[in-house]
Formats: sequence, structure tokens, C-alpha cells
Amino acid sequence: MALLYKHLRIHQIFGANTDVGKTLLTTALVRASASTGSQVFYLKPVSTGSPEEADDEFIKRFTGHLGSRVKTECLYRFNEPVSPALAARLAQDQHGAKVHIPADDEFVNAVVGHVRKRAASYSQQSHMYVETAGGEISDSQPLFLPTILVGDSRLGGISATISSYESLLLRGYIVDLILLLRDEYYRNWEYLQPYFAERGVRVDALDPPPPKIPDFDANHKTTEEYYKKIIPSSNEGSLFSVLAHLDDCHAKRLAELESMPRRTLDNVWWPFVQHRHFKEEKDVNVIDSASSDVFSVYNGHTSSLSLTGSLLEPQFDGSASWWTQSFGHAHPSLTLAAARASGRYGHVMFPGATHLPALKLSERLVNDGPGKGWASRAFISDDGSTGMEVALKMALRAFAVGEGGLHDGAERLNRKDLGILGLKGSYHGDTIGAMDATEEGIYTCEWHESKGYWLDPPTISIRKGRSMISIPPAISAGKEGVSEIQTESLAWTYDISKRLQTPLAKQYRDYVKRVLQTLDKNGGRKIAALVLEPIVMGAGGMIFVDPLFQRILIDTVRGTFSTKSSSDSSPGEWSGVPVIFDEVFAGLVPLAVTLASDSIFKAFYSDKKADALLHGHSYSAYPIGCEVANETLSMLEKISRSPEWGKAKEMWGNKPTDACKRNESEVVWSFWDPEFVNKVSHLENVAEVMTLGTVLSIKLADNSPGYQSHSAQTVLQGIRTAIDTGELSQAPGGVPFGINFRTLGNVAYFMLSLNTPAALTRSLEDRIWGVLSNTSHSAGPAAENTKEDALGGSLLKPHLSRQTHQH
Amino acid sequence: MALLYKHLRIHQIFGANTDVGKTLLTTALVRASASTGSQVFYLKPVSTGSPEEADDEFIKRFTGHLGSRVKTECLYRFNEPVSPALAARLAQDQHGAKVHIPADDEFVNAVVGHVRKRAASYSQQSHMYVETAGGEISDSQPLFLPTILVGDSRLGGISATISSYESLLLRGYIVDLILLLRDEYYRNWEYLQPYFAERGVRVDALDPPPPKIPDFDANHKTTEEYYKKIIPSSNEGSLFSVLAHLDDCHAKRLAELESMPRRTLDNVWWPFVQHRHFKEEKDVNVIDSASSDVFSVYNGHTSSLSLTGSLLEPQFDGSASWWTQSFGHAHPSLTLAAARASGRYGHVMFPGATHLPALKLSERLVNDGPGKGWASRAFISDDGSTGMEVALKMALRAFAVGEGGLHDGAERLNRKDLGILGLKGSYHGDTIGAMDATEEGIYTCEWHESKGYWLDPPTISIRKGRSMISIPPAISAGKEGVSEIQTESLAWTYDISKRLQTPLAKQYRDYVKRVLQTLDKNGGRKIAALVLEPIVMGAGGMIFVDPLFQRILIDTVRGTFSTKSSSDSSPGEWSGVPVIFDEVFAGLVPLAVTLASDSIFKAFYSDKKADALLHGHSYSAYPIGCEVANETLSMLEKISRSPEWGKAKEMWGNKPTDACKRNESEVVWSFWDPEFVNKVSHLENVAEVMTLGTVLSIKLADNSPGYQSHSAQTVLQGIRTAIDTGELSQAPGGVPFGINFRTLGNVAYFMLSLNTPAALTRSLEDRIWGVLSNTSHSAGPAAENTKEDALGGSLLKPHLSRQTHQH
Repeated sequence: MALLYKHLRIHQIFGANTDVGKTLLTTALVRASASTGSQVFYLKPVSTGSPEEADDEFIKRFTGHLGSRVKTECLYRFNEPVSPALAARLAQDQHGAKVHIPADDEFVNAVVGHVRKRAASYSQQSHMYVETAGGEISDSQPLFLPTILVGDSRLGGISATISSYESLLLRGYIVDLILLLRDEYYRNWEYLQPYFAERGVRVDALDPPPPKIPDFDANHKTTEEYYKKIIPSSNEGSLFSVLAHLDDCHAKRLAELESMPRRTLDNVWWPFVQHRHFKEEKDVNVIDSASSDVFSVYNGHTSSLSLTGSLLEPQFDGSASWWTQSFGHAHPSLTLAAARASGRYGHVMFPGATHLPALKLSERLVNDGPGKGWASRAFISDDGSTGMEVALKMALRAFAVGEGGLHDGAERLNRKDLGILGLKGSYHGDTIGAMDATEEGIYTCEWHESKGYWLDPPTISIRKGRSMISIPPAISAGKEGVSEIQTESLAWTYDISKRLQTPLAKQYRDYVKRVLQTLDKNGGRKIAALVLEPIVMGAGGMIFVDPLFQRILIDTVRGTFSTKSSSDSSPGEWSGVPVIFDEVFAGLVPLAVTLASDSIFKAFYSDKKADALLHGHSYSAYPIGCEVANETLSMLEKISRSPEWGKAKEMWGNKPTDACKRNESEVVWSFWDPEFVNKVSHLENVAEVMTLGTVLSIKLADNSPGYQSHSAQTVLQGIRTAIDTGELSQAPGGVPFGINFRTLGNVAYFMLSLNTPAALTRSLEDRIWGVLSNTSHSAGPAAENTKEDALGGSLLKPHLSRQTHQH
Repeated sequence: MALLYKHLRIHQIFGANTDVGKTLLTTALVRASASTGSQVFYLKPVSTGSPEEADDEFIKRFTGHLGSRVKTECLYRFNEPVSPALAARLAQDQHGAKVHIPADDEFVNAVVGHVRKRAASYSQQSHMYVETAGGEISDSQPLFLPTILVGDSRLGGISATISSYESLLLRGYIVDLILLLRDEYYRNWEYLQPYFAERGVRVDALDPPPPKIPDFDANHKTTEEYYKKIIPSSNEGSLFSVLAHLDDCHAKRLAELESMPRRTLDNVWWPFVQHRHFKEEKDVNVIDSASSDVFSVYNGHTSSLSLTGSLLEPQFDGSASWWTQSFGHAHPSLTLAAARASGRYGHVMFPGATHLPALKLSERLVNDGPGKGWASRAFISDDGSTGMEVALKMALRAFAVGEGGLHDGAERLNRKDLGILGLKGSYHGDTIGAMDATEEGIYTCEWHESKGYWLDPPTISIRKGRSMISIPPAISAGKEGVSEIQTESLAWTYDISKRLQTPLAKQYRDYVKRVLQTLDKNGGRKIAALVLEPIVMGAGGMIFVDPLFQRILIDTVRGTFSTKSSSDSSPGEWSGVPVIFDEVFAGLVPLAVTLASDSIFKAFYSDKKADALLHGHSYSAYPIGCEVANETLSMLEKISRSPEWGKAKEMWGNKPTDACKRNESEVVWSFWDPEFVNKVSHLENVAEVMTLGTVLSIKLADNSPGYQSHSAQTVLQGIRTAIDTGELSQAPGGVPFGINFRTLGNVAYFMLSLNTPAALTRSLEDRIWGVLSNTSHSAGPAAENTKEDALGGSLLKPHLSRQTHQH
């Protein structure tokens, strides 16, 4: 939890090793700050078995004669650097039943609460020092503050200091200062100063304390003399220069954050943004850092009242940053994977070469991943758009080569007139070629040429609690205007094998065949590929296409356009028209993989270099991207069998054992609560809702829908700002938080990470429900059961009523 | 320097801290290996002031009764963990004049030499342990071997162990094992075992030694008893399980490397590769790691005889991996930049938001970089191809909006019929839209439609030592067949201001105007943009276009097609036809930036969202890419004023002071030696040569040139394999190395990094010269001066004859 206050400069102090003088130097900083007239707050939030640090004698020793300006506080928690078992044992040994060992989040909340309380009590120039103990390697941080690293001045201390610094950077910390004792024999500071100067970090060495004397009083006296020497009453000398530097870092941080909105408006050209709609500084979301599902955003330029008192506040990333952060922001395993690959390879060029990250990723996707049973090759490129262009090049060539054979000589087929079959509302990326695989629209540019035919897809949603299929007129034409079908359940809708013999399946088949026959007759572009987004068409408006329709579409083009005998159907063999599945793949860095069957690959295989797939990018298959992807896949495999996923599946009526099933394609479930989804679907201002997995899509009832509508933005605006419910929130530190969400016209959507805690999801549901039900004139039938919500009372009530799902 | 031997398993041992028992545990490993019957080699390459370790008593103590199977050796070098000044002082104090402190590379060569010597002496199953001292934080590694990390078992040791592990990963090491003492109080291993199990690293704890006794003999006795206990004659127990694990790691590494070529051939689809030409395992370049300019490649599957005896050997990356590694592979500053941004943000979505890495990159490029004086905005995308598509969308829209005004209503201009003006041989990326901005050719796909007109560019090269401009017939037509002009010098050729009034300038102007008039008359696509690759057209065959021609082209289209009055020419204002400069930008990860002037930006600025540049990718402006780019720019700024660059500029006749000039656009220079370039240009089998900066391009005399020619591959094949000159090479460890280079038909090109050491460049020149002059029938006039080279004798002679440039 990052906190920032204008008049209160806070630094967190880490030690590069044990016995490096951390407490001594922190004491010196505290005293020096007090000596300059600042109010000083000292907090030690993590401690292992030093109970005397809390008593009056300790505080006196710590603050010296400057005690009146200093407040000290130790928050006990037994954690690292000893094992949890030992910590508990030590606690019992030393304090018996008196000591309560708080849980992770309880402790985080306590620490953040303390800092906020202290911050609120200061009105003038103040300094706060938070001394940690062995905490830099912990993956979850109670506080996320600018850092002072106490370096190691002894033998081996150069390595220890640099390693600690690197571990702090890996965890996202900003290191403002490295402070160490001036050991005249090893003189580590002589090495460290230029080393860190190159890295933009200041290193200061302070005189070491006098040798420890066994006699307590004598020792106290020499120590006090030492402090007097390094903190002279003149307030001059190196320690005061250090303080000035720390003040300067704080001032620069404040100035930088304050200036960022204007500088961004002046220099940046955002993707997908009409800059005229973002003219003012308050329109810019300033992200200072991000961790798990939460941005830490600056609020000094927004009109919203800061509920935390801090200039940095948590903001839930409601779209998982466009579905790129499948395991939340800055996941330590992914950071380490990136660092590992970068350290081992940098980038190494791929044509004709191999390296483990790319090879393992290819093997995994081809043999154990989505390519299992049909793919033979992985082609790696940079993003979804380039991955699609590669797929298009593959499909066009494969079709042309196949058709060329049929047409007795490739020359007779005009390869430029090949087209594709797709769905209305689809979106395959922003490069011009990928765009040509969709119909013309708001996203397409001057050179766009729609190179195919776009079918009207039937879609799936939940309306007033009922699972519906909406059939567009193009399909239902001829029938008696049926445009909506209610199904038994969402699970039934996705059970394709059961539905293949239904009348609707026949209707779909007839429609697709009718279209294909018409296309054939009209003699336009020759259909060379079918392009589909499986499950959901995102940019098109979070449209969930009926999977039965997609299945029938695929079966039909495979049959109708077959260029090989149907008996030739071994798993990896391509027959008929190539089908491209366009999926979004997520990790930490841009990467795309296009999987292909062997028959596609063979279309490029010849003696001529010119026949090869002459496509690539400078960083094709770069080790960092591949290694991060591998790590993401490993994490995905692990989490897919976690109890948390099991509970979400149970919530959707799946049996507990389902979590272990290998083939989960038939299990329809979501991380969103089905009761919540049901209730939202009954609201008068909601047209329909849909959810699968991490995605929740809410289409608002709007008379003028479409991409240019702002209704979703307007109606849900209320969840952007933090609300103080008087209780601890689910954000780090229990702090009130706002929600960043994305809309597509009248559709608002939310995406969780794969590891978003259920309790946080429940609190998001409460917030969404609170805002939606407040703006709805009538809450429909289901709302009768939860009148208090519909009437806009307590936001927390739905949360309480759904406790059964939160174990 | 990575080394790998089949029957010799080598591990490098790092300590997580001082006094963690590194020597004790290494001794235990050495003795246990000896106990299993293996021959054992122990090497301690870095040591600070422990001279007794080299004496007989030390060795005896170290090896115990198993001495006959163990060879120990200490290589002294005074380095970290104390400062260099202290190291020198200590050396003098302890050894007086006896001690020689070797230079960096001298020491690296010595260590590698020792390991190779020992490796050569073993024929059966053997183990080698290399104990380092405080070395894991060093950025240049004498050895790069699989690693054992000795963990810290004390208070604070969990952090110290994890930090050290992370620092090793950041430097590319593979950690096979973490070994620590079993401290029953802190029990760190209890925490570390599951922690590292998740990261795939085994942790073992060994019983601690007995307490140290002051009496030497008594201490020796208890220590020997300790070793006997942990290394029982039964060869059973945890230490032997550790050995089995290490053997297993070694065996797996061998098996993995051996299997990689086949697995790659079976699963990977390479960019730009005709797989039929890469059918055999030996065709696959297996890259195990990379550092600075050198790959470490596996040679177990190639027929080439390994000169190192090692299964891993250095290979110079002759294209800087397609010019992506501007500071060499795995530069620690770039790795740390990537780790830092990943740890602080992961990825955060960019539209409407800001974060420091993207903001700073944008500001820097717009205000201080290539955009200075004209650009107002930076649009960030994923790679060169997407960056070009963004530029095309900008230019087409800007032109359409401008023309729309002229044509009294945008509707009257058919926006789909806009075209561009470019050069033959240009290449702007592989996405279909970027491809449409070039003529049809080998790289284009089925959907390609050449949307413009392509001018014949005059080109620059060095032929037989003369600086030449080649004028294509399209330009010289009408004149008396002049197709080549010799210029005063390369420097003169690039001095455009001087050349603007020459007859050739007029010829260029006439040609461009003639083409534009014809295009206008013929009524094809309306030219909406000029697209150029400044300086060199890479993929087209490393074609250096005459900069005068590009300048005149720009001036002409700006004037001819001006949509605004010419008085309206403030620096940031766009007038005439938009010009797109397509450059390659390099760092560590894929990233592209498209800079635009304010008038381009304004073409998208309106009240309508639909008018915005609706382009973006999931990871647009991802913090990792931006942070790495920022770091690269900082490094570039620093190195551009380095003495090394100054020397290269001097070599090309620039005055020493030129290195500090702010405006360097007029300074023509290269990292390649002008004498070498001159001599190569005289070879009979060389048509022409060209060099600028890091690039060296050699076009071979070939009767059937073009992309499908293999002449460059064939002629230069000899430099691929390592050659043992009997002297130390410039590769790490002084080991013989091969050169990986790229060709475009009859053009071979080489690219250095910006920080390739001059001595390494000289040795590359020697290798290239050796092969080229050997295959050339006559070496031309210049060769007379260096007969010994032309006759194919010593490869090192040119090196010696050019010593003046090597200070």
C-alpha cells in the first residue's frame, strides 16, 4: 500500500544484511530530523523477538533529548526472517498468551492504519521513518514507500548491498538512498558510490559508532556522544546533507506526480483516445505503481476528495488492464521470469536458431496446450494483431496452394481475390491487414478494404434471470419472427453436443449454407478462410456468440469447401477451408503465437526460399516474452486446480470433483456470483448481462446504443470514486478504493485476474450493485427479495446475504 | 565464458553471505565426489588475502585422505569484495612485489585456460568445483557455469539467500542447488525448501560442523570426524543424494542441449526460413546463453570439430541479432531496467492514463530526441511494423483532412485511393498494411496491393577504394549514360548542404518532378505521403541511399503538394505531403514509437470519438518496454561521448574535438577501420563495400544477384567456424570463436554493438579479410601493399599493420 503526503515525508528502511547498523542509522536519522525542528514519527512494523524495544527505556534511548518531537511505535508481528513455526514458538516463549500473531491482511491493515492515523495528526513539516526487519524479500508488502537501504560495510558487504538493492527493485521499490557505516578498512563505500551513481542512487557513509562497552551506563554515554558528534547542534554535516537529499527526493516526487497530467497531455498520443475528450489534467489517470489487481493512483489533481488523506490511493483495475494481467500486476514470478531470460540471453535472433524459452513455449502450446491433437508448429510474433496477420498469411497461402492444385495451375486462381468468412462485430487487431478481415467501421482506416463476408451471429446473454439466445433476423428470416429463445440454463447452452440435433442447429446450418451458396453464385471474393473469436467478441461489445453457431459454421466450411477427400482426416490434417481462431493471450509483455497444423506448414515447404513464410519482426520469439509466457502457463496450470477455482465452480452448480477434471470444456462457470448476475439482469436499466470465467459484461438499456454511446460511462460513473463505508475495504491496507472500468458504448465490462480473491470480487459486486440499483427505477422481480439494496441503502448488505459463497 | 563437458560435471559455488560455510560445504562436496570414485578438481579463482590456502597444508586439510583423487588450485586475483584500492594495498602488504595483479581479461583468460587444461586431462567421470568469492555481483563473469548457492542459515539468512539467488538470475546463471547448514534454531531451510521448490530449485541442509576449538590439532581432529560423519564410507546419506542431484542436473543439461535441434525442427516455425533448407539437426544454431556480443552455442550436433574441447563455444553475433542488441546481449543495466518496471507496474493500460516510463520516453523523443524542433506527440506501439502502420494511418488521415478542405468537402476525395511515394528496395515491416507501402516482391503475400509509386534511388558505396554514387537509368536517362559518379570522399557525399547546388542535385530534382508530373497526369493513386528509410534500406539489401536524393525528394514533395501557404512554416508545422521516416529502434524488448507533428495530431482532434486514432495493442506503451528504451537512450547519450567513439571518429579523419560536438550529423564515420574497408573494396570478388557507424556491408561480385542468391553465404562460409590461431582470441576466455553473420543474397553484412571493443572489431576484420582474400583471384592495387594478406598467409598481419588505430 503506497501512501504519500505533502507535508509528511515517509521513508522505509531496509537492511542489506543483519548487524549492518540499521537501528543505529535509523536512530541517527530520527534524531537529526528532530534536530531540524521537524516532527518525527518512528514506526517499526515487523519485529522478531525484541520485546524491550517497546518499553520506555528503549524509546528514551532511541530518541535521546529530542524525545518531545518524536513519536515511536513498534507493531509486533512474528514473521520472517525466521520460519513461521519458529516465530510462533518464539512468541510463546517470550510472551506467552499475551501475544496475538495477526494474519497477513490484518497486519497490513494495522500498519497502514497506524501510518494514516499519524499522518492525519500532523499539520506541519514532518518526517516518518518505518524500519523494517528482513522484509525486502517478502512478496506481499504492508507498505510500499520510498526506501532507504542500509548497506553492509563489512567483508562481502558490496555483494550484499547490491543484491539487496536488486531485490528491492524486483519488488518495485524506489531506492532514494543507500546509507552505510564508514568502515575504513574495507571502504565499501568507495566502490558503492560510483557503482550506484551510475544507477542514479546516492550513497552516503557515516562514521561508525564507538566500540560497544559491556557496562550499560558507560556504553550509553559513549553512544550519546557519538550521536552528538554526527548530529551537531549546528545542524550541519553529512547527516544533514542526507536529510536534505531525502527532503529533495520527496519534493521531486510530489512535483513529478503533480506535473505528470499536464506533461502527458502535452506529449503523449494515446491509443483509442479522442484527445479532445481528455483536455484537462483531472482527466488523466496517473498511475504511480500497480500491484495485484490494484493501481496506486495520484489524486492531487482530481477534484475528488481523497478519503485516505494520502495523495496516492488504491484503484481497482477493473479490466485487468485490457486483460493483460492474468495474474495481477507485478506478479513476482513473472518479474523474475523476465529478469532471468533477460540476464541469460538479452534477445537472440530466432531464424535458424533455437533457445529454451522459445522452444519450450512452442512445444507446450503445440503438444499440451491449445494445439494438442492438431497443431504441428508454433510461429511466434509480437502481438495479437501480428499473430492474426501471420494466421491470415498462412490461411491464404494454404488455400491458394490447395485450390491451385484443383485449378490445374496456381496461376489461374487470382490470389489477390481471396476472401474470408467472419462474423459481424468481430475484431482481430489494428494493423491494416487484420482490419481487412473485418467489416468497415469506426476502427478502420483510409486503406481499409473489407475482404470477406460477415455473418450475423446469434448471441448469448442473461435477461431478467433467464438464459437467452438472441437470433438475428438474417437467421430467423422465413420463420415467424422468432428473435429470442430461452434455454434451460447457461450450462445447457454451452453443451454443444446435446444441441447439435435441435431445430435451432438446423436453422443455423441452413443459414450458413444459404450464405455460402449466395456468395458462390455472386462470384465475389473466393472464401479462403473462416476467422472466429472463440467465446467472446471483445472489442465488438463483449458479444458472447452462441458456441453452437460457431461449431456449425466450422463443420460447414470444412465440409463444403473440402479440397481433399473426407476420408483424409487424421487429427493434424487440414481439410476444407482453414479456420483461424483469434484468441487473446496474456502475461506480462507483448507476445503472440500462431499455431498451425502440418498441412498449413506444408503449403510453405518447398525448395524455394521465396515460398517460405517470409514474415518476422526484429524481436520475434524474444526470450523474455517466451519465458514469461512459459511461467504464465505454469501458473495457469497450477491455479486451475486450486481450491479457489473449485469454489467458484461450485458456486455455479458444478460438483466439487469437477475441479480436477482434465477436460473442463463443458463446465460453465464464472468468478462472479450467479445470484449477483441474476439480480443485475433484473434491473430495469440493464438490458442484459453475461459472464464467463473472469468476465462480466453489463449491457445497459439505452435508446441510442453503439460505440459512441456514453451510457455505460454515465450510469456507472459512481464506482470510479472511493467510498468510505466505515469498514475496512478489500484493497491493501483496508483503504477505500475506486474502480477503473472500461466501456464499449452502452456495455460496461469487468475483468478479474485469475487470482483475484473472492472477497474482493464480492466487494466489487456490492459496489456495482449499489450504483446500478440506485439509478434503476424498478429493480424487477428478484429485487423484491432484497428490497434494501434496490432502495439504495446499505451497499454491504448483498455482501452479507451471500456469505455462503465466501468460504 | 560457458564451458560444458560430457564426462566432466562442473559447478560454480557462490555464497549468499560471508561466513555461511562456503569453503566447508565445498570441501564436503569435493570429498564426497572423491569418495564416489570420481576424479575431482577444485579451483578457487578469486581470493582476497588468504595466502595460506595455496600451501600444502591447506590442500591436505582440504582433501583429507582422498587427496590422490583431488587436484586443487587457487588462482589469485585481488578484486571484490574489497575496493580495488584496498586490494592493491593488501597485495602489497602481504606479498610485496611478488604479487602480480592481473587485468580483467587477463584474469578471465587465465581462469578459463585452467579449466580447459584440466578438462582436457580427464577422460573418465569427473567433477569440478569452482569456488568464487563475493563474485555474484560482478557484471563481467570469468566463468558462466551452473551454480550451487550456499545459503545463509542464520538470522536474516532467508532474505540474504533469496536476494543472492535473484542477483544470480539477473546475471543469467542457472542455479542447480541451494545448500545450507542445518541450523536447528532458525531453521531457515524449512522456509527456503518450499519457497524454492515453487521456483524449481532444490534446497538441501547439511549438519553443521562442530564448534571451532582454539587448539589446531584438536580442531583438525573434530573437523575430520565431522567430514567422516557426513561422508560415510558407505557413500550414503544426504550429501550423496545432493551429488546424485548434481549429476542428474548435468545429465539433463546434456540431454536437453542434444535434443534441442530435433525438437526445434519438429515444433517451431521460424520467421523468414525455408524449412526445407534446415532439415538436419546440424542446421540448427543452439543458443545456450548470450552475453555482450557473443552467443554461447552448443556444438555437440555439428560436424565442426570443437576447438575448445567444450560442448559450448563462443560465437560472435555478427548482426547484433538483427540490430536489436545495441549494447550487446544481456546488458545488466537493461535487465535491471526491465526488472524494475516489471516489479513496479507489471503492465498498466495506457489510454487516458500515464506512467513515468511511457511519459519520460515520450518527452525525451519529442523534445530532446529525433522529434526535437518538429514533433509534438509520441504514439507508442509494439514493433517497427505496427509503428509504420500507425504512421501510415496518421499520414493518410492528415492528407485526407487537408485535401478534404481543398476539395470542398471530404466526400469528394476517395480516401481508399490514397497512395504513397517510396523507394524501390524499401521495406517497412511485415504486416500487410506496411507491406502495401512497398512494391510487390518476394516478401509480399496474397493480399498485397502495392499502394504507391516507387522511385529508383541513387546509392552510395565504396568501389576499389573510391567513394561512388550509382545513378540508376531512370535518373540518368537523357544524359549520356552516366551511371556512376566518383566523389571526393564519403564525408563529402554526406555533406548535403554543399551538394544542394551541384548539377547532380538538379538532375535529382528534375527526375522527382518528372515522376510527380507523370503520376498526376496518369491519375492513379493520389500521393498522400512520402515514406523513406533514412540512411540505409536494410532488408532491401543494405542499400545506402544518396542522402542528397532523399533531401531533394522531401523538399520537392513538401513544395509541390503544399496545402498551406509556404510562409506558414513554423518548425512544428506540417506542410505539403506528410513524410514518414522509418527507423529501427533497438533495446531489449519489442517497442516502437511513431513521432508526429502537431498538424498531424490535429487531423484526429475533434469532438467525435470516431475521428480519433483508434489504434492500439493490448500492451501499448508497456512499462517494461518504455523503461528499457529510456535506459538505452541514457546509455546511448553517455557512450556517444566516450573515448572509444572518439577514437573511431578519429580513425575516419575527424578531429579529436569532434567527439564533443552537439550536432554530429555531418561527421561521417564508422567503427570499422577505413583501411580495412578500402582493402576489401579492392578485392576482385567484391563488387562494393559500404560502412557507416556499426554497419559493414559487402556486396559480392555475383552474376546472379538478388535475394535468392547464396553467394555471400558461400564465399564467407569460412568465418562461421572457429579457428585456432594459437593466440588468445578476443572472445571471453581467449577461446577460438566462430562468427554468425547474415546475408541478403549476394550481400553479407555485419553489425557491431555500440560498445563492441575495438580489439574485437579488429579481429573480426582479420577473419573477414582472411576468408575474402583467400577466395579472391586478385586483390587489386591496394593489396600490393599488403601482399602477405592477399596471398592468404597470416590472418593476423592486417591486425598488426593497423596498430596505430588501436589505442
